[in-house]
Order: sequence, then C-alpha cells, then structure tokens
Amino acid sequence: MKLTRRGEAGFEIPVAEIDGIFYDASPVGDFGPAFWATGGPKMLEELAAEGKLTPLQLAEEARYGSPVASSSAVICIGQNYAAHAAESGAEPPEHPIVFLKTPNTIAGPDDEVTLARGSEKTDWEVELAIVIGTTTAYCESIEDAAQHIGGYVLANDLSERHFQLAVSGGQWSKGKCSPGYMPLGPWIVTADDFDPSDLNLRSWVNGETRQDSRTSDMIFSCAEIVHDLSQHMQLEPGDIISTGTPEGVAVSGRFAYLKPGDVVEVEIEGLGRQRQTYSAWRK
Amino acid sequence: MKLTRRGEAGFEIPVAEIDGIFYDASPVGDFGPAFWATGGPKMLEELAAEGKLTPLQLAEEARYGSPVASSSAVICIGQNYAAHAAESGAEPPEHPIVFLKTPNTIAGPDDEVTLARGSEKTDWEVELAIVIGTTTAYCESIEDAAQHIGGYVLANDLSERHFQLAVSGGQWSKGKCSPGYMPLGPWIVTADDFDPSDLNLRSWVNGETRQDSRTSDMIFSCAEIVHDLSQHMQLEPGDIISTGTPEGVAVSGRFAYLKPGDVVEVEIEGLGRQRQTYSAWRK
Repeated sequence: MKLTRRGEAGFEIPVAEIDGIFYDASPVGDFGPAFWATGGPKMLEELAAEGKLTPLQLAEEARYGSPVASSSAVICIGQNYAAHAAESGAEPPEHPIVFLKTPNTIAGPDDEVTLARGSEKTDWEVELAIVIGTTTAYCESIEDAAQHIGGYVLANDLSERHFQLAVSGGQWSKGKCSPGYMPLGPWIVTADDFDPSDLNLRSWVNGETRQDSRTSDMIFSCAEIVHDLSQHMQLEPGDIISTGTPEGVAVSGRFAYLKPGDVVEVEIEGLGRQRQTYSAWRK
Repeated sequence: MKLTRRGEAGFEIPVAEIDGIFYDASPVGDFGPAFWATGGPKMLEELAAEGKLTPLQLAEEARYGSPVASSSAVICIGQNYAAHAAESGAEPPEHPIVFLKTPNTIAGPDDEVTLARGSEKTDWEVELAIVIGTTTAYCESIEDAAQHIGGYVLANDLSERHFQLAVSGGQWSKGKCSPGYMPLGPWIVTADDFDPSDLNLRSWVNGETRQDSRTSDMIFSCAEIVHDLSQHMQLEPGDIISTGTPEGVAVSGRFAYLKPGDVVEVEIEGLGRQRQTYSAWRK
C-alpha cells in the first residue's frame, strides 16, 4: 500500500493506493501518529475490501504534500555509510549516531526550499527513512524491532554545514533544523510491501549526479537501528527515523554547496523522486 | 500567573492561579501548543476578570503533572554555565550548543523515575526552561526575542552519560531521551510575572546538596538563547528550551551516579521544587 497526501499546503487529502486504485483515506484519518497507533493501514485495507472507501481521481498536477502529516520526533542516524563517514573525515561508527531534527522541518517532496538566512553551506542528503508503526522501547531482538516498522519514505535530510559544524560546539542539530529542511515523500510504502535492504539511492544537483549508492552499504540496517534506538528512547507511532546518507555530498569538498536557483533531485528505488528548487531567504 | 496540571497521569486538569485564586482552565484548553498559539494566558486573565472561570479547591495531595501538556520540540542548551563546562572537561562555548530531547521524555515533577534499562550513569541537571509563547524565526534583536517567551518552568534534564558519551559518536541526544528523563514543573510562571536573570538554582541527592548556583552565571541569557536559536530553526508555541545546568553533577567525577532508591530534588527560586524517587527498570 502507498500513502500520499495531495493538495495545497495545509489542505492535503490523505490518499491510499491499494491494488492500483486510489482511495480517499479521510474517513480513517490523516497520516499522523493516531493513524499508525490505531492500525490505520490494516483498517484501510479492510474498508477497501468491503467497498467502503471512495475511489478518487486526482489531477496529475495536484501537489504532493509530505505523506507524514505530523510526527512527535524526527530522528536521524549519522555516518551510516562507510564511504560518507570517510568523506566527512570520520571513522565508521561502532554504534548508531543519533541526532534529532524538529518536526517543523518536514516539507513536501517538491516544495521550493528557502535557504536559511545567510546560508552559504546548505547540503543535500538522500536518505531512506523509516516510519514507526507501533510504540516500542527496549526491543529484545532485531526481529522484534522489525515488527515495529510501519513503512518507508524518501527523505532529503538538508543540512546547513556552517550551522552544524562551525557554530554548534559539535552538536549537529543546530544545522539540521532550518524551516523546510526535511522534504519527505512523495509516498510512504507500508512495510509489508517493501524490502529496504538493497535499493539504489541517488541525488542530482542541476541534473548532475552527486550520490549513487545502495542501501546494502548501510553500516546498520533499518531493523538494527530501531533495535538500538529502542534501548535509548521510546519510539512512538508516526515517528520518522532517517537512516543516513551515502557519499557524494558537498561537505566532502568535491562539490559546491547549494545556491539560489539550484535544483536538487533525490530518488530511491520504489520510493519515488523529489525535485526541489532553492531560493534565497527574503524578509 | 501560574499554570499547573493536577491529577492522575493522563487525566490532569489544567489550573490557572491568578491573584491567589485557582481556576479550572479547561474552558480555554489544556496547556499545549494551541493554548500558547491562541494567547491562552491573556484569555484566562480576561475570563477571570469577567468572573467567567470556575474557582477550584484541589486536594493538597493531588498529583502535579507536567504543566506542559505537549510540545513539538524539547530543545536543550549545553554547557551554558562556565563552571559546569569546566567540570565536563570543556571550554566555555562561543555560541549556544543545541541538542534535542524527544517530547515523550516529559514527566511530572514528582513522578517516580524508572532508570533506563542497564543504566549505571544516570545524572541529574537542574535547569531553568523557557516555554515559547509565539512562533518565531530570525529574530532581529535580543529584545525582539524576549517578546516570544511565554513563560518559565523548572526542569531536571536527566542524562544517561554512558549512552550520551560512550556509545553516541559524540552526539548527546542518545543519552537524553530515555522515557521520563525530563521532569517539568510543578508550575509554569508566565513571562510577564517573572525575571529569570538572577535566581538561585539547586539540586540535592538524598538530601545532600549537589548544585547551588545562580542563573546570573549563565553564559547566554534566556533572550540571547531564543535569539540565537531562531537563526537556526523556527520556534513554535509551547516549545521548551532548557537553558543548561550549573556545576555539581555526577559526570564531574565528584559524585556517584543515581541508583535505585535514590531521591533527587531540584529547585529554582520562584519556580518550585521537584522530588523524584528512582527505581530500577523491570520488564
């Protein structure tokens, strides 16, 4: 099942694609924490089978919003690809490295991104993100952890490297939270339909390839990440866990940072593609 | 005005104390983001003046819940007291150091704290926390920043130092997010009634003094912190910003970490006192 939210910002309709048919998912509710906590995907499947959902025809040009309506936490994993750790000047980590973004960074996949005021070091990061399906703390095994994953979504974990590294005292969140710096989507695919273990993930700036790797190069797998995180925090339904980015970002020194007018695309096999135009901040 | 939430966990009643009288604040709504976004304190004041709120008598033993019902972000400032930076082995920072806790760490001020599973290095941190009153990004001045502060609340920013420092790759959030590791309260005092610039803040373990400093020793003041943060993220109504802890915590090596049966108290002048008993995690 694929979940999207379509329409103008703030007025999106939740839409479920089941067996090739698009349904208005509004009767079950928007795709926030309560949707996952109440078993939303299963409910949608049952209602569709009973013919109780309304099929939809959406204009192709209808905007894609973030398929995540809201989250209690946006959790990120750092340096989870060995080659990216190396280009950032670091050793591969022994344990998952965790930092958080504020949930108000979430944006639609194709929304224009306003560069942070004064930003000269905004950087792209294509990432596979997990959507947590059910509350969990202290998972007993990797297999147990996997059961708490509700779905997967494409993310661009945008970073302002000056904020993150030069004026942060070494704590990364300061460069991860500018408004709109977490485009998500276009869709969530539910976990039952999807194997995240060996997918091509890529990014482009103005049409030139920047990142081109596979999720099989992740140091910690999705289920291993959920297992590790659950030892240190309680994960809530609808929480986002972005699992890290492969090599090919600007902080490596190999590419220029983003400037107004640039176009960034990111893509993961099976999770669609995002396309953002970048603009300068204006009062 | 003081704001409390009283009653059993999950069933708290929002209560406003105005001119010495306690009112049921339910008609205006619980003390979450919407309360601040809609000018809740001003509305309560007006309704009380018009005689439209219902005075309450609460049993003294009624539990204090967190006076913050929910938040989109719990933002923390690290090493904001020079002597604490020194005891942690660090230089005083040139810019505020920012990390985040997940909002599900918030607990009542006197709730029993379950030590994280396997924790041998749980540490206390008495802190003055800001409650954001109105949305803000890119504040133009310190004075402008001050206008976005809705209130103040006492916090105990509990940390698991092994999680934070030994298995974290240096990113602190991993040791800051165990369930219940952010007791808040007993009350919020609204910003119009309160000067946060020179208050005594203290902590005790089993009755022995651990921290005893003044907020005048903060490196970055409350308004300076809001100003700096707003350059890097958008602050939302009801967001919590905990402004850092003074010297006297266990990570200094001068004191033992917390163990089951310990009692921690923290206090800030004008913001009340918390008292937590600590227990071991059990399945």
